[in-house]
Amino acid sequence: MDFSLPPDIATLAAEVDAFVRAEVIPFESDPRWTDHGPDDDLRRDLNAKARAAGLLAPHAPRAYGGQELSHVAKAAVFEAAGYSILGPVALHIHAPDEGNLHLLSVVASATQKERFLRPLAEARTRSCFAMTEPNTETGEGAGSDPSMLSTRAIRDGDGFVISGRKWLTTGADGAAFAIIMARTGDGPGDATMFLAELPNQSFRIVRRLTTMDTSFMGGHAEIEIDNLHVGPESVLGEVGKGFRYAQVRLAPARLTHCMRWLGSAKRAHDIATDYARRRKAFGTRLGEHEGVSFMLADNALDIHSTRLAIQHCAWVLDQGGRANTESSMTKVIASEAIMRVVDRSLQILGGMGMTRDTVVERIFRDVRGFRIYDGPSEVHRWSLGRRIVDGK
Amino acid sequence: MDFSLPPDIATLAAEVDAFVRAEVIPFESDPRWTDHGPDDDLRRDLNAKARAAGLLAPHAPRAYGGQELSHVAKAAVFEAAGYSILGPVALHIHAPDEGNLHLLSVVASATQKERFLRPLAEARTRSCFAMTEPNTETGEGAGSDPSMLSTRAIRDGDGFVISGRKWLTTGADGAAFAIIMARTGDGPGDATMFLAELPNQSFRIVRRLTTMDTSFMGGHAEIEIDNLHVGPESVLGEVGKGFRYAQVRLAPARLTHCMRWLGSAKRAHDIATDYARRRKAFGTRLGEHEGVSFMLADNALDIHSTRLAIQHCAWVLDQGGRANTESSMTKVIASEAIMRVVDRSLQILGGMGMTRDTVVERIFRDVRGFRIYDGPSEVHRWSLGRRIVDGK
Amino acid sequence: MDFSLPPDIATLAAEVDAFVRAEVIPFESDPRWTDHGPDDDLRRDLNAKARAAGLLAPHAPRAYGGQELSHVAKAAVFEAAGYSILGPVALHIHAPDEGNLHLLSVVASATQKERFLRPLAEARTRSCFAMTEPNTETGEGAGSDPSMLSTRAIRDGDGFVISGRKWLTTGADGAAFAIIMARTGDGPGDATMFLAELPNQSFRIVRRLTTMDTSFMGGHAEIEIDNLHVGPESVLGEVGKGFRYAQVRLAPARLTHCMRWLGSAKRAHDIATDYARRRKAFGTRLGEHEGVSFMLADNALDIHSTRLAIQHCAWVLDQGGRANTESSMTKVIASEAIMRVVDRSLQILGGMGMTRDTVVERIFRDVRGFRIYDGPSEVHRWSLGRRIVDGK
Amino acid sequence: MDFSLPPDIATLAAEVDAFVRAEVIPFESDPRWTDHGPDDDLRRDLNAKARAAGLLAPHAPRAYGGQELSHVAKAAVFEAAGYSILGPVALHIHAPDEGNLHLLSVVASATQKERFLRPLAEARTRSCFAMTEPNTETGEGAGSDPSMLSTRAIRDGDGFVISGRKWLTTGADGAAFAIIMARTGDGPGDATMFLAELPNQSFRIVRRLTTMDTSFMGGHAEIEIDNLHVGPESVLGEVGKGFRYAQVRLAPARLTHCMRWLGSAKRAHDIATDYARRRKAFGTRLGEHEGVSFMLADNALDIHSTRLAIQHCAWVLDQGGRANTESSMTKVIASEAIMRVVDRSLQILGGMGMTRDTVVERIFRDVRGFRIYDGPSEVHRWSLGRRIVDGK
Repeated sequence: MDFSLPPDIATLAAEVDAFVRAEVIPFESDPRWTDHGPDDDLRRDLNAKARAAGLLAPHAPRAYGGQELSHVAKAAVFEAAGYSILGPVALHIHAPDEGNLHLLSVVASATQKERFLRPLAEARTRSCFAMTEPNTETGEGAGSDPSMLSTRAIRDGDGFVISGRKWLTTGADGAAFAIIMARTGDGPGDATMFLAELPNQSFRIVRRLTTMDTSFMGGHAEIEIDNLHVGPESVLGEVGKGFRYAQVRLAPARLTHCMRWLGSAKRAHDIATDYARRRKAFGTRLGEHEGVSFMLADNALDIHSTRLAIQHCAWVLDQGGRANTESSMTKVIASEAIMRVVDRSLQILGGMGMTRDTVVERIFRDVRGFRIYDGPSEVHRWSLGRRIVDGK
Repeated sequence: MDFSLPPDIATLAAEVDAFVRAEVIPFESDPRWTDHGPDDDLRRDLNAKARAAGLLAPHAPRAYGGQELSHVAKAAVFEAAGYSILGPVALHIHAPDEGNLHLLSVVASATQKERFLRPLAEARTRSCFAMTEPNTETGEGAGSDPSMLSTRAIRDGDGFVISGRKWLTTGADGAAFAIIMARTGDGPGDATMFLAELPNQSFRIVRRLTTMDTSFMGGHAEIEIDNLHVGPESVLGEVGKGFRYAQVRLAPARLTHCMRWLGSAKRAHDIATDYARRRKAFGTRLGEHEGVSFMLADNALDIHSTRLAIQHCAWVLDQGGRANTESSMTKVIASEAIMRVVDRSLQILGGMGMTRDTVVERIFRDVRGFRIYDGPSEVHRWSLGRRIVDGK
Repeated sequence: MDFSLPPDIATLAAEVDAFVRAEVIPFESDPRWTDHGPDDDLRRDLNAKARAAGLLAPHAPRAYGGQELSHVAKAAVFEAAGYSILGPVALHIHAPDEGNLHLLSVVASATQKERFLRPLAEARTRSCFAMTEPNTETGEGAGSDPSMLSTRAIRDGDGFVISGRKWLTTGADGAAFAIIMARTGDGPGDATMFLAELPNQSFRIVRRLTTMDTSFMGGHAEIEIDNLHVGPESVLGEVGKGFRYAQVRLAPARLTHCMRWLGSAKRAHDIATDYARRRKAFGTRLGEHEGVSFMLADNALDIHSTRLAIQHCAWVLDQGGRANTESSMTKVIASEAIMRVVDRSLQILGGMGMTRDTVVERIFRDVRGFRIYDGPSEVHRWSLGRRIVDGK
Repeated sequence: MDFSLPPDIATLAAEVDAFVRAEVIPFESDPRWTDHGPDDDLRRDLNAKARAAGLLAPHAPRAYGGQELSHVAKAAVFEAAGYSILGPVALHIHAPDEGNLHLLSVVASATQKERFLRPLAEARTRSCFAMTEPNTETGEGAGSDPSMLSTRAIRDGDGFVISGRKWLTTGADGAAFAIIMARTGDGPGDATMFLAELPNQSFRIVRRLTTMDTSFMGGHAEIEIDNLHVGPESVLGEVGKGFRYAQVRLAPARLTHCMRWLGSAKRAHDIATDYARRRKAFGTRLGEHEGVSFMLADNALDIHSTRLAIQHCAWVLDQGGRANTESSMTKVIASEAIMRVVDRSLQILGGMGMTRDTVVERIFRDVRGFRIYDGPSEVHRWSLGRRIVDGK
């Protein structure tokens, strides 16, 4: 049992930390960070800085220019990057691209890798992952329960014609390609993933959703897929294995969310700590009031618990485990602890916490979503509880 | 002991409820509801509807065209209005005007009433309350602890010259007048309130703050008061009684916040309930999952507790009590319970909860501030705890 | 709307409060208060004191010597009595006798009233209510779900023969009679209540259970009912209406639990407050540490919310309402808030809180059960949630 | 970074687990387990079984027959032992002996080791640690704040005369010796530890306290130390270093509490899980109700977080760190999470949870104290918060 970081990872994480503080945080007040996320112009500026620092896409396979970080290494590096919400954008390790890159590196054919993975790994493109669907009048549509998928891909010659409606498709606006999940049979598990280059007039962005969070590039879109013709080379992996691949993507992608947002939580905590050291009220510094210092202590407890859970789960993945249970547990622990940390930090800031005068306001809005994305806490509790009762 | 509403109040509340559902909710998607609150054009449209329905400013003194509602009556009527965030705007019972109207009706001179209160009571103007100050480098400035007030009013002939900096001044942009709190002596309690007509070049809006909440008209401004000359007729009440008047304003204003946001919480709960009845996941309707229905039950518990605490405190005020302890307790109970209700409602909505496709997203952003405005929970716990320990 | 207590009730509650402090609390260290509750000898001493003070059984019907208190009156009087766990014993308003008295006064025949209700109302006897059953190997038995009742009463001439197993039968040891719930048909709702005088060799106390709580007279017993023959005069009310009568008993009995334990919570809070005022640590009195005073403030909030919910529900019952929803809500609010209050109070006492040097240790043990008795919180949330989702 | 247990430790933990299930759990219904803890006769029987299994005192130094387990090893072994509250008694790794053994092995002289440590390490004796003092009328006495120590040791020739009052002295009744903390100067840090053989008529057990918890051998006593003469050979370590040694004892002793009680929490969870699988209510097995399965899921989350925090802190200690911050964090995380786990488990058991029909009732009573012993959560939050604000 060993809780120390390998020195090379510790060094890399320290470099990322220094880079984020020196080079990224100044961009937080850049107007190109809109309510629909940082725009592509800002992204390119940030990527250029990371490239210059030798820190771009460290998670990518070595064959595609990356450092092929282990999950444990990612835990340290992504947390450091997440200290600014713009850090993962700069390093090109943000969602959904990070998960898509992982999925492609595991499942894609050599040809697909050259066409889609290489430019993505080199931060020349962005991508999106079109699985979630809007709720219909009759309550259908793939959401927390992906088995309710209603988008269909019908055989057409040696290819397919895809039709359906997606939404909350993060990053669709500006993406160079989409990974589309569609039903290819009548069985509950008959789904397939397809790769589609964008823009494409059969993959129409109906609208960009106005959302509470503001960190995802391109925002979240509603998409109408209307008779999108794709050839056999567009099938990602094998036909009918869509849900299996979704699992390949899911646990690691879920975990990297935890890593990045842990960095954000640390940031909010540091801003609140700094404020508590300076601001005075009722005869003394805020931080000398136990009502405030206990909140900071609780932040420290939550950050500590979250980091340990992430490191443990990363280690299980590095050992080759699927980590279904561990990643579910970590997702719930992390998303709820991080929300508490940011909520307390905002509370300590008082009225200023509600304003964009600190980045805590953006962080708060962002992390609220984390308790929902990649499976709401309730779905994870449901699944963990069922495994316990069933003795699995 | 009697928990029933007087029939006339119940009738009025039912009318407001029907009005909000029929006439106000349709405006929730109006683009004039900006991120800095509903604009004045939208406000005038809404006021016109309320006026036509005979529901405008029912809290105002009878002498100024209102119905002079008791606090208990307000509890019912303001909750009904709050079912849409735009409801209080329509009825002209929103903050800070509602509290300012109350303050003026208690403290202002006859002349001041004609000049400031009448047009306010008739919804012809808006106003602002300039007490809160930015945090300085040395940690000073009136915030949760108003005794740290640093804006000064210096005697100048029979008038005063006011200089200082204010922020989070809600509604300053567009207000017809400001109530300004300034220090008029060196003692800890030497403060005075002044009335100043706006716009005024010595009361400069430095910037409008970007904030998480979006419901306050005019948003929240940072203000520079630079040698603002005011005559003796601008003193509100008596010189040196500023903090005492702040208390006059505080308890009732705090309580009406609770009332309005309780309506918002009820709205979020209803939207979530409706969704839980229709949306399907994992083999059944969401609402048939205990993981969801228990959240709705908890909402009902929180709404019930909040409503009772508000009614009780309103009754104490109606009996002539100052209700310092009761309004502190109610503020903490209400603001924390309402936040939980809205948070659970958003969680039930899943991804959709993060989007502006329902108004829950706006409500969530707004109620987060309620745990801070009018005294953060920590200040109330501090004061309640001290009274318990001191046996007062 | 009126939150004031009628003067006569306020006076009675004040008398009970004074009585409990002066006459009852000194008995708290009496060794006759065993881990299976106060024994009957102690009870008789306490009853004598209450009788002398004119405070015995104020809830009983006037025809049986009581004052026939309204539910609102009970809210005030029972809370005052509950300030000592021995207070309700002294006044003879404890469970399960208080609920049984109510049930008999509503349902029993004139003959049954003379035989069972009169001596009970005069505190000459105790009684028990035998509904709950042990969990069988196959998971059956009436618990939270009374419809799983397995005790059977078989027609035998004009009477019945009852057989089955009960447990957690509070007060069975020493009771003069039992109200027994038994199945009298095969339909899910076919149950009947029977009255049986005790002791009776066919109603055998198998064992007294060792339990965490220590306040119930006679403790909690496991009972074997083995061919207990009862005549037609033993049927309480009508055959087949057992579950309906259980409802008659349930809501009010649930509510009086809330009232009594609210008094206990107040007591724990007062003991902790007193300690926080005197005990020193880390340079000052405990109570001057916000970490402690915030806990006291939270106690005040929980006590306030609980009292309001109880008063409201009592008023609904007084208006003739069944108060199913209100009593469910109040039970959850009260039992969880009271547990928090007592837990915080114990925590403030530190090591001493774990000892019987204060009565908080007993209160803590007792109130833990309150989240389970009369329906665990989960059953109430389930039922509240279902009503919300079903729109009832 | 490596989360795997060394194979030899994993093997040892598995042996302890099997031993506890097969040999210890059957004793849980032994009447010699009294409300003042297991008696010495039961202890000897259990020790004999552990000795026969080669599992007695595995934490003791090799020189005294033990296996000198690392902290990480203890984390695994003590958790396994704690699966029954009697497990640590059997293995002789319970409090306060475990902490005393550690302290003696670090601080005691060679002579003291032979006289006190050897028989303790061989489970031939028990010991106590007399630091905590009763609260005086003026609020003084060593409790959470040890600097309020009032017991005094006055120089007398080459020895000392000790006088004072102690309480909550765990295991005093039956102990072969006491470690006594006494003030030996007027400075705030002038304290010394003394070793005193027991029984001794100048170290009088005034009474055994009645407490909520029931697992500590000998219970908790109040002690009057009345002119206890001790020679220079009774000074443990050096004069004036008492508080420093208390720190030596504290962090590891605190951590082993976490380990043992984590085992208890796991046990309570398993009992609740088993019940949820069998018990039926409202049409299905309890465990199929999300209201129950979500509680089991939360148990799993809390157990997971606690285990990781313990392992991490143990590793820091094994690296030679003082682990002040880590052990404070772990103590709060563990004691609060474990309380929640046991509380939920009891709740799932319903009425049965309140009875001694399962060991959960005892576990619940015991773990309540854990949030207080070795520093209440509030003291740890205070200290953690202060370090954050002070930037240490």
